[in-house]
Amino acid sequence: MSNVIDLTKDLINRRSVTPEDAGCQEMMAQKLSKLGFNIEQLVFEDTTNMWARRGSEGPLFCFAGHTDVVPSGPEANWQHPPFNATEDGEYLFGRGAADMKGSLAAMLVATERFVKKHPEHTGCIAFLITSDEEGPFINGTTRVVDTLETRNEKITWCLVGEPSSTEHVGDIVKNGRRGSLTGDLIIKGIQGHVAYPHLAKNPVHIAAPALAELSATTWDEGNEFFPPTSFQISNIHAGTGAGNVIPGHLDICFNFRFSTEVTDQQLIARTREILDKHGLEYDIKWTFNGQPFLTSSGELVAATQKAIQSVTGKATQLSTAGGTSDGRFIAPTGAQVIELGPVNATIHKVNECVRMADLEQLALMYEAILMELLLD
Amino acid sequence: MSNVIDLTKDLINRRSVTPEDAGCQEMMAQKLSKLGFNIEQLVFEDTTNMWARRGSEGPLFCFAGHTDVVPSGPEANWQHPPFNATEDGEYLFGRGAADMKGSLAAMLVATERFVKKHPEHTGCIAFLITSDEEGPFINGTTRVVDTLETRNEKITWCLVGEPSSTEHVGDIVKNGRRGSLTGDLIIKGIQGHVAYPHLAKNPVHIAAPALAELSATTWDEGNEFFPPTSFQISNIHAGTGAGNVIPGHLDICFNFRFSTEVTDQQLIARTREILDKHGLEYDIKWTFNGQPFLTSSGELVAATQKAIQSVTGKATQLSTAGGTSDGRFIAPTGAQVIELGPVNATIHKVNECVRMADLEQLALMYEAILMELLLD
Repeated sequence: MSNVIDLTKDLINRRSVTPEDAGCQEMMAQKLSKLGFNIEQLVFEDTTNMWARRGSEGPLFCFAGHTDVVPSGPEANWQHPPFNATEDGEYLFGRGAADMKGSLAAMLVATERFVKKHPEHTGCIAFLITSDEEGPFINGTTRVVDTLETRNEKITWCLVGEPSSTEHVGDIVKNGRRGSLTGDLIIKGIQGHVAYPHLAKNPVHIAAPALAELSATTWDEGNEFFPPTSFQISNIHAGTGAGNVIPGHLDICFNFRFSTEVTDQQLIARTREILDKHGLEYDIKWTFNGQPFLTSSGELVAATQKAIQSVTGKATQLSTAGGTSDGRFIAPTGAQVIELGPVNATIHKVNECVRMADLEQLALMYEAILMELLLD
Repeated sequence: MSNVIDLTKDLINRRSVTPEDAGCQEMMAQKLSKLGFNIEQLVFEDTTNMWARRGSEGPLFCFAGHTDVVPSGPEANWQHPPFNATEDGEYLFGRGAADMKGSLAAMLVATERFVKKHPEHTGCIAFLITSDEEGPFINGTTRVVDTLETRNEKITWCLVGEPSSTEHVGDIVKNGRRGSLTGDLIIKGIQGHVAYPHLAKNPVHIAAPALAELSATTWDEGNEFFPPTSFQISNIHAGTGAGNVIPGHLDICFNFRFSTEVTDQQLIARTREILDKHGLEYDIKWTFNGQPFLTSSGELVAATQKAIQSVTGKATQLSTAGGTSDGRFIAPTGAQVIELGPVNATIHKVNECVRMADLEQLALMYEAILMELLLD
């Protein structure tokens, strides 16, 4: 039987900086193949994806995750080498320890235990694994989902291994995510010399009231599952560097994180309305990063809550806060989607680490969810 | 007798990119020395200045100017090499042709003619020449003026050779300039992830209403000689480049061009009042670039108007518009100050040029002013 800590170390030691997979999926495929999974490798452009499925009838439970990690930054800044997994006290250190190679190891261990104990389980188990979650997410989960949709292969329940937890594993489960919409806005003015303002049109000045209104707007009140929609300017730039030149244009990048109370099209229309009301001349480019999704209830949520309670003795909390995840690509197919993984305090930072006991508990939770859903 | 075009060429061919003088002042000193001027070279740090004076009694007329020029940029972009003065049709091309080596040549020629015709003129003539007008103007005119003030050597009338004209030489005379005050403002927020706005404080959002108010504020109405005070944001920057990060601070550079109806201290107080009213946390660094100055009337203005009328047959117009000049350092000593020089259409640009006939006229104007002021 595999050991969750050893498996996590094996994965961390493979330098799979996005979009590299570095052999992680092949290692997983070998283990799953022995358990009776049918393995498909789906390569799109620079991205390696794996769709592994066991069984052909009944509801389909899917573990979803990614083998790629964000870059480590200068390795000298790390206490332990980022691609050489190191135990230190209660913790295992390395890039991907929490996001999300620990989860992949827990999925494998849980599946191995479950299948060996219950080879005649009901329904099917699948793994949807990509190496393009941390990158532009163009050739990863979204294209695998397209492939499955084309052949009408439906996921019933999907558990994404993203690090959802805050203080201890299982304290938070994500049962949805806000939508994300980005706008790149150029406000047009007329460049000139500060000594001759009547010959110029300062784009910062004419934009300021509109930016004030956009910042103060209540887009919705949120709902039971979602906080209110949030508008944030992430970047703003104007000026030549010289102190005596009125800039010719103002460049702004902003982002909406939005609830299920509004749509991307409504946000686009209301943004344009505010800009137009202030008489601005502008160009705007919209990038739609994903609809909000929500699994408010159902067998998957119930099984997850029960599994966490049984392993930790504590209740879990459902949340839709935080960044986007690949769940947004899977939920539109009709699947129930939840995210359950380790504590996310160190992800994307130097000295990323995971409490080893948490990974053991995570494997138990995953196994308990399989038992809840796939045994008569 | 010197020829104004030849002298201008000689000066252009000396590559005196600010703060270099490249021997321009030495050439001028040799000519002035022969005319009975006492020459003082005043070197401050990297800057060469010249104070040349003829006579010791009575009112002191001073030509003021600079030998340094702004960089040419890539010389390949010029029709003619910028540091090799070239005649082309009616025009003389080269860096500094209009700003302001043509004026320096006209001053020399006018003085030579005047002194040779009227060696017993009343009062005194001086040249205050710097090589730090286009640079940081720390070691140039301001320090020469300090030196003169220390020994209580007073300028009565000062003619600055800055290119004041718009269509033809003498159509505009500057009899004052607005004040200039620069602010470097940092609005403080709290950096964070766009997905967790409640943990961050977006400095762009909190600053927008204050920027709108600063942009819309009427600082004064100007007066007979000055347009209303103008506030302009020249540079604004916030953001890490990443689309998912709320910036931690917003950096803004702005500039006031202000009339004699307000003081720099009033502008500073009113700016702070607006920022404070909006509850902003900020740092601000003020750079004071010069008080406004004005020579509304007097012998110098009258002599200049008369000289221009006699040379061109046209009336001139007094103006305080445009950028700063070294006149701001001389006016506070009590001197009457005006600026008269060639057409400024090509200054600081590629293919800087001056109409050669304009330089001939300028020399005649300067000579006529000397005659008006320094003959009984």
